[in-house]
Amino acid sequence: MEIKEGTASSILSGDKRSIARAISAVENGDEGITELLKQVFPNTGHALVIGVTGAPGSGKSTLVDALAARYRSSGQTVGIIAVDPSSPFTGGAILGDRIRMQSMATDPGVFIRSMAARGHLGGLASATTDAVAILDAARYDKIIVETVGVGQDEIDIVKTADVTVVVLVPGMGDDIQAIKAGIMEISDVFVINKADRDGVLRTEKELESMLSITERADGWRPPIIKTVATRAEGLNELAGAIESYASHLENAGSKANGRRTTVAEHRIKEMLRERLFRLAFEKATTEAEFKEMAQMVADRRRDPYSVVEEILGRLGIG
Amino acid sequence: MEIKEGTASSILSGDKRSIARAISAVENGDEGITELLKQVFPNTGHALVIGVTGAPGSGKSTLVDALAARYRSSGQTVGIIAVDPSSPFTGGAILGDRIRMQSMATDPGVFIRSMAARGHLGGLASATTDAVAILDAARYDKIIVETVGVGQDEIDIVKTADVTVVVLVPGMGDDIQAIKAGIMEISDVFVINKADRDGVLRTEKELESMLSITERADGWRPPIIKTVATRAEGLNELAGAIESYASHLENAGSKANGRRTTVAEHRIKEMLRERLFRLAFEKATTEAEFKEMAQMVADRRRDPYSVVEEILGRLGIG
Repeated sequence: MEIKEGTASSILSGDKRSIARAISAVENGDEGITELLKQVFPNTGHALVIGVTGAPGSGKSTLVDALAARYRSSGQTVGIIAVDPSSPFTGGAILGDRIRMQSMATDPGVFIRSMAARGHLGGLASATTDAVAILDAARYDKIIVETVGVGQDEIDIVKTADVTVVVLVPGMGDDIQAIKAGIMEISDVFVINKADRDGVLRTEKELESMLSITERADGWRPPIIKTVATRAEGLNELAGAIESYASHLENAGSKANGRRTTVAEHRIKEMLRERLFRLAFEKATTEAEFKEMAQMVADRRRDPYSVVEEILGRLGIG
Repeated sequence: MEIKEGTASSILSGDKRSIARAISAVENGDEGITELLKQVFPNTGHALVIGVTGAPGSGKSTLVDALAARYRSSGQTVGIIAVDPSSPFTGGAILGDRIRMQSMATDPGVFIRSMAARGHLGGLASATTDAVAILDAARYDKIIVETVGVGQDEIDIVKTADVTVVVLVPGMGDDIQAIKAGIMEISDVFVINKADRDGVLRTEKELESMLSITERADGWRPPIIKTVATRAEGLNELAGAIESYASHLENAGSKANGRRTTVAEHRIKEMLRERLFRLAFEKATTEAEFKEMAQMVADRRRDPYSVVEEILGRLGIG
C-alpha cells in the first residue's frame, strides 16, 4: 500500500484512520513508511509510554483496559498496543479476536491496536516502537504497550517504554522463579492482580524478598500494587505508582536522559541490523542460489560458517 | 580464551572437558570458534535432536531428566542443553543453580549444560545450534534442548530440533490459548505432564479440538502423551512417540530433507545477520560517535531513520 500525501499532518491532527493505516504500513514494511516516520518523529516525546507485561493468565488485558478507563475518567487520551510475539504464524488472531471493553471501542479518546510478528521485515520490537512514535505524534497522553508472556521478546518490547509494569497473580511461585532473572531489572512497578485470591500474601513476600536483594542504578525501589482488575480495584494506586516513577525519572534528570539514550541506541542498532541484512542479502546472492547453498549445508556437503564467509567476501566487507 | 590445537579431535572422541570448553567458546564468541565449528561440522547429523518447551511450572526439567534416564536405561548416550532466553542479565543463574538428577551428573554417558543469552555476539538460538553441533559431533545419540517459557525465542530455538515436544499441565486453559498460535505449528508431540492432577481430561479435550482444526503439511498428527515425570510414568510412551515421529520424518524422505534445509537456511541467515552487523558497525562508526548520534535521537534533534541511512551510506551499500 502506498502512503498518501498529507498522511503526516493527518496523524498529527489525530485522524484515527490515518494512524491505523500508518501502523499497518509499519507492520508490512511498506514503501514510504520511513519517510513518514521521519516526518512525524520531531513531534514525538510528549506521551508517557507504559509497558505492561506478565505471564499468560495474569489478567493483563483486563488490567490494561481498567487502567485506560481510569485515565479516560480524568480526561486523558490513551493509545493501547497489544503485542503478541508468539503468533508469527497466524497474524495475531488471538489478540485480534479478543473483545476489548466495548465502551472504549467507540470512545474517540482511545485507540486500540494489536500487532503480531509478520514476515521478515524488521523485528516486532522495532515495529512496536514505530507504532508508539505514531501514537505519540498523534498526541495520545498515555500509550500502553501490552505484551503476552515474559520471554526475551517481551522484555525487548517493554524496555523501550518509559515505565514498565509487571503483572503477577497470587500463587505463581514457579513463574516468579522463571521470570525473575530478566524481569527484576526492568520492572518499575509490580502489580499483583487477582488480589482477592488465596496466596496473595505469599506472592507479595516472595516478591519483596527478591526486591530486597536487587539494587537499581537509578535508586528507585519498585512498589508492589495489589489490584482486582475485573472490579477496577487498586487502579488509582497503580496510576499513582506510574506517575511517581515518571516524576522520579524527570527529577533524576541526566539519568532519565540516560535511559532514553540507551533506548535510542538499541533502536538504531536494531534498525541498522535489519536494513544491512536485507540490502546485503539482495546484493550478494539470489534466493535460488541461497536455497542451493542451504541444501548443501543440510546434506553436510558444506558447512554454514564458510557459506557466510563467502557471502561477506562478495560484499567486500568480510 | 584461545582454542587449543587438537580440540576438534578431542571433541570427536567425546572428551567432556573439551566439549564444555567449546560450548563456552560458542557462548563467548571466542576467537577461533568458527574454525573449530567448521572442523567438527562434517561429523554431525547422527544424533536425534529433541526440543522440549512449555510454560514455566509445567515440570519440563523433571520430564527431561526422566526421559534422559529412560534413554540411558536402553544404553543410549544423552546430551542435555537447558536454554534460558529470559535471563540475559544474570547469566543463567536459574538453570545453573537447579540441581539436576544427581545420578546423571556422574554418568559418563550424559552431558548436561545450561546456556543463557550473553552479550551481543549472535543470538541464543544460534549459540544453541552450535552447541548441538558440538554434542552431535561428540556422538551423543540423543540431544535434548530444553527451554524455559513459550515465547518467540523459545520457538526459534526448538524449531531447529528434529522433533519438538511441547509440555502442558492440566488446567492451563489460559495458557493453551496464549501459546496456541505459535506452538501448534511446531509441536510434533504433546505431553500433558502432572497427569495425576485434576483437569487432565479437559486439557486433553481442548488440545484435541485444537489439533483437529490444525492441518500439517507433512501429514503428521501430533500424539498427546500423558506423563507423571516425578514417578517416571508415561516415559516409554513418550520415547515411543518421539521415535515414531523420527521414523515418519525418515520415511517422508524429501519432506524431512525439506525441514533440514529450512533449518539450514534460517541458520545461515541468522549468522549472516550477526556477522554483517558487527563488521559494518565497526567499520562505519565508533562507539563514541554512535553514542552521540543516539543522544541526538533521544533529544529529538535527529531522527533514527536518517542516522541509519547515514551509516549505510558510509559503507557504500545504502
